[in-house]
Amino acid sequence: MQDDVVLLAHGSGGTMSRDLIEKRLLPAIANPILSRLDDSAVIEASGRLAFTTDSYTVDPLFFPGGDIGRLAVCGTINDLAMVGATPLCLSLALIVEEGLPLSILDCVMRSVQDTCGQAHVDIVTGDTKVVPRGKADKLFINTSGIGVIAEGLDISGSRACPGDRILVSGAIAEHGVAIMSSREGLSFSSEILSDCAPLNGIVGALLEAAGESIHSLRDPTRGGLATTLNELASQSRTSFVIEEALIPLSDDVRAACEMLGLDPLYVANEGKLVAIVGPEGADAAVRALRSHPLGLHAAVIGEVVEGKPGRVMMRTRIGPTRLVGMLTGELLPRIC
Amino acid sequence: MQDDVVLLAHGSGGTMSRDLIEKRLLPAIANPILSRLDDSAVIEASGRLAFTTDSYTVDPLFFPGGDIGRLAVCGTINDLAMVGATPLCLSLALIVEEGLPLSILDCVMRSVQDTCGQAHVDIVTGDTKVVPRGKADKLFINTSGIGVIAEGLDISGSRACPGDRILVSGAIAEHGVAIMSSREGLSFSSEILSDCAPLNGIVGALLEAAGESIHSLRDPTRGGLATTLNELASQSRTSFVIEEALIPLSDDVRAACEMLGLDPLYVANEGKLVAIVGPEGADAAVRALRSHPLGLHAAVIGEVVEGKPGRVMMRTRIGPTRLVGMLTGELLPRIC
Repeated sequence: MQDDVVLLAHGSGGTMSRDLIEKRLLPAIANPILSRLDDSAVIEASGRLAFTTDSYTVDPLFFPGGDIGRLAVCGTINDLAMVGATPLCLSLALIVEEGLPLSILDCVMRSVQDTCGQAHVDIVTGDTKVVPRGKADKLFINTSGIGVIAEGLDISGSRACPGDRILVSGAIAEHGVAIMSSREGLSFSSEILSDCAPLNGIVGALLEAAGESIHSLRDPTRGGLATTLNELASQSRTSFVIEEALIPLSDDVRAACEMLGLDPLYVANEGKLVAIVGPEGADAAVRALRSHPLGLHAAVIGEVVEGKPGRVMMRTRIGPTRLVGMLTGELLPRIC
Repeated sequence: MQDDVVLLAHGSGGTMSRDLIEKRLLPAIANPILSRLDDSAVIEASGRLAFTTDSYTVDPLFFPGGDIGRLAVCGTINDLAMVGATPLCLSLALIVEEGLPLSILDCVMRSVQDTCGQAHVDIVTGDTKVVPRGKADKLFINTSGIGVIAEGLDISGSRACPGDRILVSGAIAEHGVAIMSSREGLSFSSEILSDCAPLNGIVGALLEAAGESIHSLRDPTRGGLATTLNELASQSRTSFVIEEALIPLSDDVRAACEMLGLDPLYVANEGKLVAIVGPEGADAAVRALRSHPLGLHAAVIGEVVEGKPGRVMMRTRIGPTRLVGMLTGELLPRIC
């Protein structure tokens, strides 16, 4: 039944495009700004704005704990939150492979809307392209987003300075392990779910509690915690020292990583953040994170120190200290 | 030589991603905001903002008169201009197929930068994903953009009203014919070039000359002039009447359309606009368009009338009047 799949004509710009958009895509995510259907959305905003973009090519489209729609909404909201911005609105651009079942598109759109609802953000503008069979892999999504940064905040990877504490908001490596297990058809004693979640709420709580002592925020996605710490140390021209024993990691994820031959420090997260916090705000920051449902296992894992710019050292569980580099090569393609 | 093509590891988020971004992509399009490399760009803006997104999957990547990089920058600038906004900044998100020669990526990035320079707009945030061979077709680009709308302007497809004049800024169907000829390996007596161009300059001139009498603007891309007129008539619940003899169309493009079996009314444009203008401003609007290099052949092609909402009628060259519908089915996939 050709009615049940996406056809090239759905991307033509003509009547079938209009029907797909007006009858299937818009109803799922409707709001007054989007429904105007001009070439651009018109919004009101002022002051310092954050602007970010990300494409999502995750394989498989649906995985334990999430799907490409949830991932696309969370990922872009999180990039806004990581400069301290309150998300204002998102765009949603789909590249669909001809032949994708419309039922799959419906599921993804429902997930987009559920996640937007959870994060209190609307999709205000969109785009849909269809490419012939074999020219894409089912569905790719781009989300871009705009957020507003409150007065007085200046959060950047460049602001880490010696003495700052390094915090992580919870147990690491869950997203990557969930994707990998799902792809390999592995199952563990308990199912490991992706941590994919919108972080604007927990960042709001963190900023309220520790406002100006928050120097840097970053979500450790592709490349994992190790790569994010390297980026922050390099951007701020400082050294970082962390303690392996302090890094939150669940037993299930640790066991899965051992079985899969993965180092959890390099495995992607989609609902965790790293915060670099001045020492005066560190306790308040940890308390704020732990009092939010997404931060129950938040912990201080180390400290920013003087030293070779960009160097990250880790005191291991068994005692000695080792260098923690960036991810080299390719761990796991299409993780997000 | 594996050094010469994009590898999966370039999308890993690790050292090869960093090298690709910092050594190849950033230098091409560098500016102080982008180079900060936080998760979001931070910009200053206030008032009414326009926000838009578009993905580009054009095939081939390079075509007479343009390439996917130029198209991606122009398309999003034009969507901003079509609500009367002055473009402020763009995002650029690449989905690259493993194996794409880096030299091709370099060419596209140069074109992105050249077009940004021409339009006086910067790329301030970006993203790069790599998917395995066969999971995408060489390169897809998403650009999103933010623009600022001046006080007093209210431009929307819903604002066309009876008595308004319908203007087009120049000869139609050039982009689609250029792509189609290039794909089919056809050549005509003179090469037909895509009209792909940033329209923010000509829209600025138009708004200065006819400001508040500009009711609607739209660029007739996928689906061509006919589909755009149908959308505008439908959105404003009016009827449109146009005259075939008044529609600018070059002899070369007309001949190519006849040979290719295309109706130029349905063929995509990437550097033209339709303006719906109150009668008091129509003469000034035409003069303003014609005095800009991109609008030399601008013309009034018809009028908005009372009648069945969404109906577009055309008086043909040979006399009788016929209904002009939206594009149905699929004319030409991956035109943009």
